[in-house]
Amino acid sequence: MQLPQITPVDRTREPALRTLIDGKAKPLGALGRIEDLAVQLALIAGQPAPRVAKALLLVFAGDHGLTESGVSSYPREVTTAMVATFLAGKASANAFARAVDCEVRVVDAGVAANLKPHPSLIHAKVRKGTRNAAREPALTPDEVAQALERGVMIAWENAAADCDVLLLGEMGIGNTASAALLMHRLAPAPLADCVGAGAGHDAAGLARKLAVLEQAAARTDATDPLTVLAEFGGLEIVMMTGAILGAASSRRPIIVDGFICTAAALAAIRLDPGARDYCIFAHRSQEQGHRLMLEALAAEPLLDLDMRLGEGTGALLALPMVRAAAGLLTEVASLQDVLAGRI
Amino acid sequence: MQLPQITPVDRTREPALRTLIDGKAKPLGALGRIEDLAVQLALIAGQPAPRVAKALLLVFAGDHGLTESGVSSYPREVTTAMVATFLAGKASANAFARAVDCEVRVVDAGVAANLKPHPSLIHAKVRKGTRNAAREPALTPDEVAQALERGVMIAWENAAADCDVLLLGEMGIGNTASAALLMHRLAPAPLADCVGAGAGHDAAGLARKLAVLEQAAARTDATDPLTVLAEFGGLEIVMMTGAILGAASSRRPIIVDGFICTAAALAAIRLDPGARDYCIFAHRSQEQGHRLMLEALAAEPLLDLDMRLGEGTGALLALPMVRAAAGLLTEVASLQDVLAGRI
Repeated sequence: MQLPQITPVDRTREPALRTLIDGKAKPLGALGRIEDLAVQLALIAGQPAPRVAKALLLVFAGDHGLTESGVSSYPREVTTAMVATFLAGKASANAFARAVDCEVRVVDAGVAANLKPHPSLIHAKVRKGTRNAAREPALTPDEVAQALERGVMIAWENAAADCDVLLLGEMGIGNTASAALLMHRLAPAPLADCVGAGAGHDAAGLARKLAVLEQAAARTDATDPLTVLAEFGGLEIVMMTGAILGAASSRRPIIVDGFICTAAALAAIRLDPGARDYCIFAHRSQEQGHRLMLEALAAEPLLDLDMRLGEGTGALLALPMVRAAAGLLTEVASLQDVLAGRI
Repeated sequence: MQLPQITPVDRTREPALRTLIDGKAKPLGALGRIEDLAVQLALIAGQPAPRVAKALLLVFAGDHGLTESGVSSYPREVTTAMVATFLAGKASANAFARAVDCEVRVVDAGVAANLKPHPSLIHAKVRKGTRNAAREPALTPDEVAQALERGVMIAWENAAADCDVLLLGEMGIGNTASAALLMHRLAPAPLADCVGAGAGHDAAGLARKLAVLEQAAARTDATDPLTVLAEFGGLEIVMMTGAILGAASSRRPIIVDGFICTAAALAAIRLDPGARDYCIFAHRSQEQGHRLMLEALAAEPLLDLDMRLGEGTGALLALPMVRAAAGLLTEVASLQDVLAGRI
């Protein structure tokens, strides 16, 4: 398949942007990370007045064959039940989205059930869940290509519909298992450093999860991103990878949520390093492995709140910072004007 | 003077609140710090559905006689110029406030200039700046009482006008110097650990600031909060102390910004330890000393973004988290209902 073309940001513009920010009515550097974020947004936009008004959270949902081997403490059916909860506006992501003025839509990337039409549901199902990666490749190369393409298209459609900022979230029982395998091969990192408790495991559950993932990893020594995505899935992760590539090729900032979204970002960046410039890493998840995965991407997230829910909840809490950073560029007077009384 | 009566929150309600949150449609504890914040908000409200819709940032402004001794790298006139900038809607705090849907009002606690009436300006000036604390007490006991009372009244008036959450910010050239002296006596901590670069100092400037503050500290060995406030000022800090006591007595959550606001919170908590329950500490400032001051209050702030601007910018970035935490309590379905399809 042909991946969309991504133009890395033009870093030669950074000094002029720093000068602009340094001239604002505040002590030099006094807004710390928000100043860096403002620079990133302006570089992405290609001009010093980035638009960040309209934000959309896409929650990609999919099921995982790995759940047959007991990698999760929750039954697979919870994925479908949570999709219904998002559509009813009653999940944590919906509550957080209302708190930060963000629209939420759910993408059925591969839920193992037939979902009824709903105004906030995007039907993009490639298949009903992945195959069990402990025993066979989770996806065929063609299924990976389909999921990537649909992800790209969804990002493009929303960019064309004036969506300024794209937030990524996910729901999929078992998806920390897939994400751990992707991290293992693409970071790369020892598998044991990539596997964590996910939605919740005791020591025995965690040991079982690690054993299943060792079995999956032992099937293949693939390290190229497309093959790794096919081997380990899942559909919601592959489709997020496509959405990141699509949003980056449309020059839109992407707010990346936690462990699973970062695995999608890792895959996207391994497919095209230019995608890195467009990613804003929202928070450091409590999921074991996320710290190391962020380090592999040289990413310093904005928040560290001991969260590990997914759904885009971390990305949503970072959205106001993105808007504040844009406001610094576009709404704050210069110190020169303030001192001269020209405001 | 008579301080307002503060009822500490009823911690016996916490287990029931934890049970409520644990029953939500998410893994146990998966929202980390946001869950703790939800508990705090419900304890403050005295019921499990706290209201956090209407938020108000009060930026308290005042001047400092200490600037005569060269404690700041900026001239005193910047305080007045920045007040005009807030009122014109062009400061960083205004941009951030728009990003998080928060009203901004400025309180003239003690600016050294006559300010013209403006719809967003609260006139509460006690005097035009403090006296130079390096040579004499910054304020008389009567001026401290006036500033505290006006702060209490401002908080009460806004609570009565249905303000759900109060955010505190400040502007006052030289006020990290006053805040450092307050911290030194009220944390308590060695003066050198309390003094930082403020709006910006080179090594020589920082050494001069420390020398001036040593001179101020040497004038008195006061450690009781009211006397310490009189000795070192400033008016915006004392009035914020009053506002914290007033908001706490009205059972309203208070989002505390950085170094200077935390010094006001420290004074409020030393005057009435019950005020602690109502304070939400927004961020860890880059100002040297803030880390230690937060530790003295056993406060773990929500954010750490290398900021050191003040104005309430950190408090504003924490506001969406407060709203998200309230949304978790009031808008998120229970796991039981989700699994039973009752949503």
